[in-house]
Amino acid sequence: MSFGPRGDDDRDVIVTEVGTRDGFQAEAAFIPTEVKAEIVDALVDAGVRSIEATSFVSPRAIPQLADAHAMLERVTRRDGLRIAALVPNARGAERAAAAKVDMMVCFVSASESHCRANLNKPVAAALADVAEFAPIAARFGIPVRGAVATAFGCPFEGDVPVDALLRIVDAYRALGVRHVTLGDTTGMAVPPVVERAVDAIARRFPDVALALHFHNTRGVGLANAMLGLQMGVREYEASIGGLGGCPFAPGATGNVCTEDLVYLLHESGFRTGIDLDRLIAVAQRVERVVGRTLPGQVMKAGPRLKLSPLEAARRAVG
Amino acid sequence: MSFGPRGDDDRDVIVTEVGTRDGFQAEAAFIPTEVKAEIVDALVDAGVRSIEATSFVSPRAIPQLADAHAMLERVTRRDGLRIAALVPNARGAERAAAAKVDMMVCFVSASESHCRANLNKPVAAALADVAEFAPIAARFGIPVRGAVATAFGCPFEGDVPVDALLRIVDAYRALGVRHVTLGDTTGMAVPPVVERAVDAIARRFPDVALALHFHNTRGVGLANAMLGLQMGVREYEASIGGLGGCPFAPGATGNVCTEDLVYLLHESGFRTGIDLDRLIAVAQRVERVVGRTLPGQVMKAGPRLKLSPLEAARRAVG
Repeated sequence: MSFGPRGDDDRDVIVTEVGTRDGFQAEAAFIPTEVKAEIVDALVDAGVRSIEATSFVSPRAIPQLADAHAMLERVTRRDGLRIAALVPNARGAERAAAAKVDMMVCFVSASESHCRANLNKPVAAALADVAEFAPIAARFGIPVRGAVATAFGCPFEGDVPVDALLRIVDAYRALGVRHVTLGDTTGMAVPPVVERAVDAIARRFPDVALALHFHNTRGVGLANAMLGLQMGVREYEASIGGLGGCPFAPGATGNVCTEDLVYLLHESGFRTGIDLDRLIAVAQRVERVVGRTLPGQVMKAGPRLKLSPLEAARRAVG
Repeated sequence: MSFGPRGDDDRDVIVTEVGTRDGFQAEAAFIPTEVKAEIVDALVDAGVRSIEATSFVSPRAIPQLADAHAMLERVTRRDGLRIAALVPNARGAERAAAAKVDMMVCFVSASESHCRANLNKPVAAALADVAEFAPIAARFGIPVRGAVATAFGCPFEGDVPVDALLRIVDAYRALGVRHVTLGDTTGMAVPPVVERAVDAIARRFPDVALALHFHNTRGVGLANAMLGLQMGVREYEASIGGLGGCPFAPGATGNVCTEDLVYLLHESGFRTGIDLDRLIAVAQRVERVVGRTLPGQVMKAGPRLKLSPLEAARRAVG
């Protein structure tokens, strides 16, 4: 048993940062637009090349992200950088296109109960919204990523059948979607569940580029990512500092932490193009912005070979 | 790629609880002896059958554990329960034997710098202490577990050569030790380092029962445990609620959390004999005892299939 790249041409892993979207949307106090843009710029300076930066949902639904257009205007764009935004419907797609996003992310829950609780409509209606906006994205030449929420479990229904995932991915593909993210919305993923889902989708849809989005709500986010890596998945979504939470579990953490994931990847021989020290500095800034301790670990302890001075340590050990 | 037991006769994993020793020793405020004993009893009631309960180091070095004998007198003993204690020297071994421990745990750092910082003596002298007390344990018929601290990295020296581990395990074996724990004292273990160490020891010393003791200081504790499981290691040390810390990284977490580990094990098809709900209740009690939020995640979110009521969720999602 071994863990790491299968060879030198298998070292690259895409880490997609979702903190300013999935993380900030849970923050009650409004974060100034220029601060959001500066954080995205700082992430890019640290080497991040794929960012789900904001959301074009209704400003009334998520006031924190009502500044999506203005924020993206302030973000420094460059070649090789993919700025994505969440898009719920045709109106959102028009706004996202006007803001010149590089990718639109649509989302549907794999379970009916969560879809109704989150979007106030059944899965079929949510897919109809995607069908309505996909041509808009196509008209602007903007690729669409299809996210499947509650892919590894629903907080109301429990286990989610693999068939439900396959049906949604099939519907996405029929709309021209070739990037799919399986989202562990409330942190219910565990290794055997991840294995079944990834295996079924990879077999049935070998042309789909699969990304995994884990939450660390039950402490096993990176263990799940490790299994995904072993199964050959090479794209992961994570949140700087571990920003975000879970509305169903007060006090529980949310997204897998970007720095911790990047640390695990680099130490295991994978390449991300990200400078871990600079990423940690961004996480520390985000901690100051939100004004509370974030769950990220590497941002507190530093990389493993950042050695302690012996004298300080002697005092610490006693 | 798959994760889980290799067959029905490969499901059992020993989870050794170290919270009342490795966790409590970092607590400044003295925890009453009867409370410590009640927590051990509650862990046993939850199904834990292997506990490193306390330490017979000098009471001046760790006042919190000065009540080792009195605490063990209060713990309800039963068949099939293994109560271990840390023992630094012959004096400690006599005290541990008088307290009727089922196992003595000796410890030596794999790196000279950490050994000197922690024990104020070189590795050779620390091994000489073990050589002095091993016969005492043997006289009482009490097995000795040999712990190797900083086995996956030293905060002063960095990487620890596998040869250093092999030398210490070899010395332990010569003293009759057949249980060895590799300890990730400051949370520097990462998958390739774990793989090298476990592989080298398993090949060279197939008669040694190996346990792994990870810290979650850099967020990858359970990912390391997952790799150990894939390599066939079937004993892990963990701390209830994730009690403990790291003197070299203020704010960083310490031991891997017992409930989170048990959750990962059960969900992956392994058996521990532990009732997760009862274990979570113990973690919540420990949180009240130490008076602060512990890093454990499952104790906050609950097991994955503890479903949310739909109405509460609708309000939460908004």
